Amino acid sequence: MNDSLNPPSLNPESLADIATAKGFSGAAGFRVVAVAPGSAEVAVSRREDLTQFLGHFHGGVITALADQAAGIAVTSSLPRGKIGVTVELKVNFLAPGDGSELVARARLLKMTGSLGVATIEVFTRDATSEADRSSERLCAFASATMRALDLPAEFK
Amino acid sequence: MNDSLNPPSLNPESLADIATAKGFSGAAGFRVVAVAPGSAEVAVSRREDLTQFLGHFHGGVITALADQAAGIAVTSSLPRGKIGVTVELKVNFLAPGDGSELVARARLLKMTGSLGVATIEVFTRDATSEADRSSERLCAFASATMRALDLPAEFK
Amino acid sequence: MNDSLNPPSLNPESLADIATAKGFSGAAGFRVVAVAPGSAEVAVSRREDLTQFLGHFHGGVITALADQAAGIAVTSSLPRGKIGVTVELKVNFLAPGDGSELVARARLLKMTGSLGVATIEVFTRDATSEADRSSERLCAFASATMRALDLPAEFK
Amino acid sequence: MNDSLNPPSLNPESLADIATAKGFSGAAGFRVVAVAPGSAEVAVSRREDLTQFLGHFHGGVITALADQAAGIAVTSSLPRGKIGVTVELKVNFLAPGDGSELVARARLLKMTGSLGVATIEVFTRDATSEADRSSERLCAFASATMRALDLPAEFK
Repeated sequence: MNDSLNPPSLNPESLADIATAKGFSGAAGFRVVAVAPGSAEVAVSRREDLTQFLGHFHGGVITALADQAAGIAVTSSLPRGKIGVTVELKVNFLAPGDGSELVARARLLKMTGSLGVATIEVFTRDATSEADRSSERLCAFASATMRALDLPAEFK
Repeated sequence: MNDSLNPPSLNPESLADIATAKGFSGAAGFRVVAVAPGSAEVAVSRREDLTQFLGHFHGGVITALADQAAGIAVTSSLPRGKIGVTVELKVNFLAPGDGSELVARARLLKMTGSLGVATIEVFTRDATSEADRSSERLCAFASATMRALDLPAEFK
Repeated sequence: MNDSLNPPSLNPESLADIATAKGFSGAAGFRVVAVAPGSAEVAVSRREDLTQFLGHFHGGVITALADQAAGIAVTSSLPRGKIGVTVELKVNFLAPGDGSELVARARLLKMTGSLGVATIEVFTRDATSEADRSSERLCAFASATMRALDLPAEFK
Repeated sequence: MNDSLNPPSLNPESLADIATAKGFSGAAGFRVVAVAPGSAEVAVSRREDLTQFLGHFHGGVITALADQAAGIAVTSSLPRGKIGVTVELKVNFLAPGDGSELVARARLLKMTGSLGVATIEVFTRDATSEADRSSERLCAFASATMRALDLPAEFK
């Protein structure tokens, strides 16, 4: 293949950033903190429009963050031009999302053919420094199955 | 609010409306369409800030809508002053959320002590009339466990 | 068996019976009660070696029965020569499996490419007549993702 | 309470052994390998009556082993006289259970009131030595919610 006219596909970091900047994840302020083959970390800061009626992060937002991290973790392990889309996801809520931030850390357990399974831990924390984990409390645990799809041409 | 006359607790419809109007579900435009003991229907219209990078409803938004419907379905079967909060939720994504609306229909399968299990079907559709189901396509199926909690005093 | 005339692949009923008669499902006495494209019903009678320490059906046996029914429901909707294997399964336990029998009824919600999603209701009952549902209590609800595989040659 | 006439409740190891020796888990040959507060390891050896039609461990047996390990992990963190029963369980199947043994390792993520959430890794392996993990392949990953119940009097 002659890549001089066709630029190479996006690298995983760029793809994760571009995909996360769009739509809901962009509007909600999801930030890709780290990407490596088979793992990803995504964070979001507290805003009123991301909470439930008691003032904690909404379960749907917690789940969306876990889903986003899982998708990036799986996609980062696929050949360029492929992306992981969610087949199913289960989340257990363990504690209120009552901090000033949420961070989701996903890792790929295994790819089997075009299917990948990832686990995701979601923490809530008060600190704003990514490096300071002292205030983190595990608030949800999720597992997800992702399917590898061809990335639409406009993203390649 | 004047509590001096000790008004009765909110009825399920009012509680569902109030809880849904706040935070994420309010900002996203979730609408409580129907509530009955053990069942609920919640809908949302398409907006750019509710989509994923391909332009369909984001999986996290689909899940949040399912969760909201399940919470209302369970809460509506509880004594006044109690509310259902999510213990766990699993969602299978069956088709792209590519319509102009989503509607989630939840029903309580069973309460066992303080735990209730609900199933939720999420459809995407083109029509805007609640009564017209001809364009509905099943886009997700979920099951959830909810736990009955005492409603905080400010909601009673 | 004389394959010289190249007989057609097994029909779904025969395949379900043959697969269920083998290994664990055969040893446990699982019985295929009904098969139709996209649905299946499988039952099992109570035995001491299928219970947990309180004397009810073991959760693992309830789950195995649900899994078996889901596999048959999905397989029965596939072209001959294909079989559905389990990608993931979630089960909610709703009541003790305290009857003399269990019956699992599975139905396919949707096939998407090579993936199918099924829901399964598991009932416990006292009666032994398949037609008499008056004593049935819902004891578990499950959802499962199945993947279509080529059936090994010896089963075709 | 006067414990001089009422012997103390069973310790977690004894309870795990007694519960596992009964019914399905006993008949299938489940062995409690290790128990500590919040964790447990349970193994089983391959037998024809634990397989599916392709000759690998049956998904229901894999799930039952995961469930048993989760129950013991949660129970071992509870006060004596309490036992964890399964509310829900989800399992992702990652590879065929094609070894001569299965081993499930469960750990408690968090107790919240009377509910505990555990994760379980199930490996298949060829070696028979518990200490030799060189042949282990991850074949399933599960998460489960358990509820603390009062242990029936005959087990105390």
